[in-house]
Amino acid sequence: MAKIHGFNIAIGFLLISVVINFFLVYNHFAYRVANQELSWSKEAALEAEAVASISCSGHGKAYIDGVPFEGVPVCECNSCYGGKDCSQVLPDCPADADSGDPLFLEPFWVQHAASSAVVVAGWHRMSYRFSSNDKSSITVELEKCIRELHAVIGNAKTDGRYMVFGAGSTQLLNAAIYALSPEDSPSPASVVASIPFYPVYKLETEFYNSVQFKWQGEASLWKNRSDTSGTSIEFVTSPNNPDGKFRKPVLTGPSAKTIYDHAYYWPHFSAITSAADEDLMIFTLSKLTGHAGSRLGWALVKDEKVYTRMQMFMSLNTLAQSHDTQLRTLKLLKVVLKERGRKMFEFSYKTMRERWERISKSFSSSKRFSLQKLEPQYCTYFKNVTGPSPAYAWIKCEREEDEECTAVLQTANIIGRGGIVFCGDTRYVRLSLIKRQDDFELLLQRIDAMISKESGAAYM
Amino acid sequence: MAKIHGFNIAIGFLLISVVINFFLVYNHFAYRVANQELSWSKEAALEAEAVASISCSGHGKAYIDGVPFEGVPVCECNSCYGGKDCSQVLPDCPADADSGDPLFLEPFWVQHAASSAVVVAGWHRMSYRFSSNDKSSITVELEKCIRELHAVIGNAKTDGRYMVFGAGSTQLLNAAIYALSPEDSPSPASVVASIPFYPVYKLETEFYNSVQFKWQGEASLWKNRSDTSGTSIEFVTSPNNPDGKFRKPVLTGPSAKTIYDHAYYWPHFSAITSAADEDLMIFTLSKLTGHAGSRLGWALVKDEKVYTRMQMFMSLNTLAQSHDTQLRTLKLLKVVLKERGRKMFEFSYKTMRERWERISKSFSSSKRFSLQKLEPQYCTYFKNVTGPSPAYAWIKCEREEDEECTAVLQTANIIGRGGIVFCGDTRYVRLSLIKRQDDFELLLQRIDAMISKESGAAYM
Repeated sequence: MAKIHGFNIAIGFLLISVVINFFLVYNHFAYRVANQELSWSKEAALEAEAVASISCSGHGKAYIDGVPFEGVPVCECNSCYGGKDCSQVLPDCPADADSGDPLFLEPFWVQHAASSAVVVAGWHRMSYRFSSNDKSSITVELEKCIRELHAVIGNAKTDGRYMVFGAGSTQLLNAAIYALSPEDSPSPASVVASIPFYPVYKLETEFYNSVQFKWQGEASLWKNRSDTSGTSIEFVTSPNNPDGKFRKPVLTGPSAKTIYDHAYYWPHFSAITSAADEDLMIFTLSKLTGHAGSRLGWALVKDEKVYTRMQMFMSLNTLAQSHDTQLRTLKLLKVVLKERGRKMFEFSYKTMRERWERISKSFSSSKRFSLQKLEPQYCTYFKNVTGPSPAYAWIKCEREEDEECTAVLQTANIIGRGGIVFCGDTRYVRLSLIKRQDDFELLLQRIDAMISKESGAAYM
Repeated sequence: MAKIHGFNIAIGFLLISVVINFFLVYNHFAYRVANQELSWSKEAALEAEAVASISCSGHGKAYIDGVPFEGVPVCECNSCYGGKDCSQVLPDCPADADSGDPLFLEPFWVQHAASSAVVVAGWHRMSYRFSSNDKSSITVELEKCIRELHAVIGNAKTDGRYMVFGAGSTQLLNAAIYALSPEDSPSPASVVASIPFYPVYKLETEFYNSVQFKWQGEASLWKNRSDTSGTSIEFVTSPNNPDGKFRKPVLTGPSAKTIYDHAYYWPHFSAITSAADEDLMIFTLSKLTGHAGSRLGWALVKDEKVYTRMQMFMSLNTLAQSHDTQLRTLKLLKVVLKERGRKMFEFSYKTMRERWERISKSFSSSKRFSLQKLEPQYCTYFKNVTGPSPAYAWIKCEREEDEECTAVLQTANIIGRGGIVFCGDTRYVRLSLIKRQDDFELLLQRIDAMISKESGAAYM
């Protein structure tokens, strides 16, 4: 009887065990199906994830193309941080607010790692061209994506306009000057801009030393000169770098050509007041997604002849834009376009708005320094009145003796970009608000310390 | 008794089943450990592999940034192939041997898919610069890799030379002209080259229309003119495009500057006879690994002033080279460097050598056409005498009436690049031998048909 009982128990266990057998086999295959097998891309994916998982205390990053230490990738620390894991704060490190490096967007891309990563196969688009049929050197899908983005954000009209890709806006500015200046005119085209302006306009115009165009400086001064004739080319940056103000051209008329640099016309830096509708408009990925290192920009061009000449410049200058960059940009813009741009622009506007509010508050108690005045405006994208959130603070030193404003800030261990760089007054300094959060916090700390001394001195 | 026997069997099965369970559990975990979990990179990896697995009959490829059809990526067919899976041969399609698109290397990268793939994270190197400490805009590791490659191949000395990155050799040629022409000279520098030469030299020199330099055409003609003075800048392409011959400068002396374009000085196109040791040498990824679409080149520059001026050109022209491209190039060159370059250069030399032998054989029976003569030479890299394997066939039409050689080839449905494009004789045509195998096979087929008619006509 006991044997029979034992037999039944054994059969029971056997059945359970066999059921477990089936379950485990099923589970294993279900797992393998769910976790699809990767083949050739796996090595690269593992490498990228291993490097990304290196902890740098939130104050640095390791990169797969970094300089390894004893064969192992290491942390590259943010400014003013050091040590193996970037946990050490470097003492007396200057608050460097010089460069317009748009790293405030970095955390957004870390948060959206899965959707923004891209695998580049070894054989990806090796050809000079995108297709053996047409001779195009730009990705059709990327062009479509950019047009869609402008439509969604409402910052520029793209209908009836050609698109030219360039290495950032930098190369497109070059191409535009060449394309707009007459080839066979006896006198060169006059290139101008309104002070304060982005210094590259002047530097590159002068550097090429071309027979076709000549740098003539301040637009309004040039307008009032008596000896002006022939074609003029005016750079109009709107919103303006450094001061964030909307700009209109000073020169008008049939021989006045305008290059609109709309690098900063995105919802994080400015209210979108209407869709820009000019003949030649330039945008750049750097100030849209923060990928300055990718060097991609685009021009929207109405006139076919100007477009053709810009293309000619591109083909003789660099032939085309990197296919690797075009691939990555496509992936990034697809992420931006999700939910009609809400996710990215809400993050980016919130970040920039907070920074502006905090720096405004800091300077509000100062009599020695003043900040540019910017008004809230209705933003057609956010469908709301939005407060200012510019890329740069444009500081003025108000005291008579503070003629060299950069020097004044330097005594507080702050590095700004002097007004003179923008062909403006040395009483002004540009402070970049678009770098990493670490940089902004240090900057604000130094500003607060500087201003607190000022009032201290006033009370003494 | 039977029950006891049954009981023992049941226990036996139970034990087996339990052992199987342990095995399955162990196996599952061992599998998971071996197939490490991927997180954020997985989506991109799966996407890349799915697109790569689309079959295009060996006559095309699908790309992740291609134009999808109904949301699904589709094949992009090689020239002269069509249909959904590129299996249809397009009738009467011209054999297009015009472009120097270096796709003969594509199969190598397909074979080395795992080691050459790269995952670009969304936050990868967003900054303008590579490091917050130095102001470098080039990857230290990539520069190291390129120097190592030159040392391994023995085609150029890199010691005591600066390195400048450019968008292919195209941008570097521009930068070099600017850097070598005196800024404050009363007369412009004279830019020359020996016919036949790469047409971009002339086109870009003229396009910039600069006060600093002027295109003066054929080097030897210019040398013999009486009115020559001041700085000269000579482009020397060695091996030469189009004819594959080694070249030396025509102009010498203290004010004669030379830009050495060594795009084709790699073991697949030429014997490496000695390490080039010139003041300004330019190389490009396009003709090394075949990644023309990535637009990366480098210059090796001895003189610090010239280097600084080239850097200045770069920073005003495009600011820097794409970080995405630099990352990918690093990965590719690491593959090239494996086994001291053996794998890639044996594949690439074998491919080019076979093509040259086959096209030479085809033309050997022709009296109407002749091919340039190239001699076997000792290659220090392969440590052997190697037969010619040039990038281009430089065909001459020998009959008196065949003055327009491109037109003659066109009647045989072959597209070549006419000698006139290289500022040379219309009796010459360049045929590209570096495109895909499909292109080469069609070209050879057309050449054979053309030559067979020629002898047929002779016997008539």
